[in-house]
Amino acid sequence: VPVTVLTEPELRQCVRLDLELVEAIADAFTASASGRVVVPPSLHMDLTEANGEIAVKTAWLPGLPSLALAVSSVFFNNPQRGLPRSSGSTMLLSAETGKLEALLLDHGWLTDLRAAAAGALAARHLARAEASIAGVLGAGTQARLQLEALILVRPIERVLVWARDAVKAECYADEMAERFGLDVLPVLSPERLVLEADIVVTASAARSPLVVADWLHPGLHVTAVGADAPDKNELHPAVLAHADRLVCDSRAQCARLGELHHALVSCPDLDVTELGEITAGRKPGRLSPDEISVADLTGAGVQDTAIALLACRRAFAAGLGTKIGD
Amino acid sequence: VPVTVLTEPELRQCVRLDLELVEAIADAFTASASGRVVVPPSLHMDLTEANGEIAVKTAWLPGLPSLALAVSSVFFNNPQRGLPRSSGSTMLLSAETGKLEALLLDHGWLTDLRAAAAGALAARHLARAEASIAGVLGAGTQARLQLEALILVRPIERVLVWARDAVKAECYADEMAERFGLDVLPVLSPERLVLEADIVVTASAARSPLVVADWLHPGLHVTAVGADAPDKNELHPAVLAHADRLVCDSRAQCARLGELHHALVSCPDLDVTELGEITAGRKPGRLSPDEISVADLTGAGVQDTAIALLACRRAFAAGLGTKIGD
Repeated sequence: VPVTVLTEPELRQCVRLDLELVEAIADAFTASASGRVVVPPSLHMDLTEANGEIAVKTAWLPGLPSLALAVSSVFFNNPQRGLPRSSGSTMLLSAETGKLEALLLDHGWLTDLRAAAAGALAARHLARAEASIAGVLGAGTQARLQLEALILVRPIERVLVWARDAVKAECYADEMAERFGLDVLPVLSPERLVLEADIVVTASAARSPLVVADWLHPGLHVTAVGADAPDKNELHPAVLAHADRLVCDSRAQCARLGELHHALVSCPDLDVTELGEITAGRKPGRLSPDEISVADLTGAGVQDTAIALLACRRAFAAGLGTKIGD
Repeated sequence: VPVTVLTEPELRQCVRLDLELVEAIADAFTASASGRVVVPPSLHMDLTEANGEIAVKTAWLPGLPSLALAVSSVFFNNPQRGLPRSSGSTMLLSAETGKLEALLLDHGWLTDLRAAAAGALAARHLARAEASIAGVLGAGTQARLQLEALILVRPIERVLVWARDAVKAECYADEMAERFGLDVLPVLSPERLVLEADIVVTASAARSPLVVADWLHPGLHVTAVGADAPDKNELHPAVLAHADRLVCDSRAQCARLGELHHALVSCPDLDVTELGEITAGRKPGRLSPDEISVADLTGAGVQDTAIALLACRRAFAAGLGTKIGD
């Protein structure tokens, strides 16, 4: 059986942020909560000489015929060479024979998408049903996709955006306004953004808190997706401590890489719900219009396996890809 | 820049067990001993429902432009489906930008070869110069390659082979005799083999010791390559305890996965030299004709990076491979 290689254009042709993807990611979280998944600790490599890092994540889900090994890299000197900072590709292996079935040259596109799909799930279960004002901190790829995710699940009408670089925030506002036909407004401070928004998404590369607890207000939901390493931090620990509901994609991984990591230092007894417990129906989502909820998302291996399988299923059905080898 | 995909036939065309490979592996061990390498703990995944396991190893070496992510799998039910138990492939990533440069569909061929090259290094530094009788425990792929490795570095004239399955030992003997023009004799017991041999290589899948300390004799060198998991074991702990020299490819990994793992239970104070300390010239190899030496090899990430780079350099020079993507 040959290996199928799928390029980024081929993958973009067949996978996008839609409700089928959100359901596939929900199923992955539900399986994760069932305890039957196999999720080894991810492999993480720091290349200090090259100012880069490489990570490999994987997960096996019951009932799925394959599993993904998602390789992602961030090299901070790449922009100086005219290259994107982040890159990535995914191997799909048979869960029954270990054989390599496909190589997805997605350049991080699938990782970006599955992170956005988790954002959609967090908002679906935790944001107020009528939430219409979104606040986005950050103006990069993930800030774009997280807004698209919110629009999928909530009646967003107005968007506030803040970024450290005001020019990027302007570009973001123009692009998103045109793309979604929404009112998108750059604001001068995270404070104003949080105070006005129904849902806040933090998608920055911040290494010190952007959001403090003083700004929290009844009914607010905050999803933090920027932190994926121990030294990244977008929410002040008190934000997590003051939330009525605190949800993590993976309690163990957030305690190592996410907002939870920083909050546990001052508040070791935080009550954490896993997103999979909610998608599985074992724990409730938002319980009242006044609750303040926080979701800490660091990206789980189960999401990589779910999206890689969805991508391959669609790509194979469309006859895409190059077959190589025996 | 596109990704180059190399198939197993293409890789077999340009990489074999030769002295250039042995030198490349020696350089990798030397770099490893310098402490400048980056070798994160390997990712290991047990898939109990499918009776399989998947491992990912990687290492960065100073001065090399790329690094390998070696993915290997063993699925024990595969033979029932007419498939090989083991499989594997290797990703080559730029060590400067993180970009995927090549995918090597070697099906474990490179892993097998680099393990044999480490066996050649162990024999070169630890076996007597005039060692001419090789004893091989096991009759699989690695047992074949380890003999080829010994022949590269020592004047082997006579080979003894033992395997749990006597028919496989006969096949091995016929095949190796014809291939290398040597006298190859299947024997009925590991005991006779060890007593007669100058160099013993254990390359079995044993989960209890095949070799005991009573059989050790002055001048003997033993290389154990079969154990690569905590429950595998070819040498009785006393064999390591009685050796005058005990060498590991990676002290940390052997303590987790190799013969050392079992020996440390009864003898926690074993004096271990790393192979890289010897190839670097910081510690001596064999010091006298009477020494008894033992090498415990579990396979290190630095070897994967070294062989993948050698393979790609030769394959690119020969114009091999299929280029895919932008």
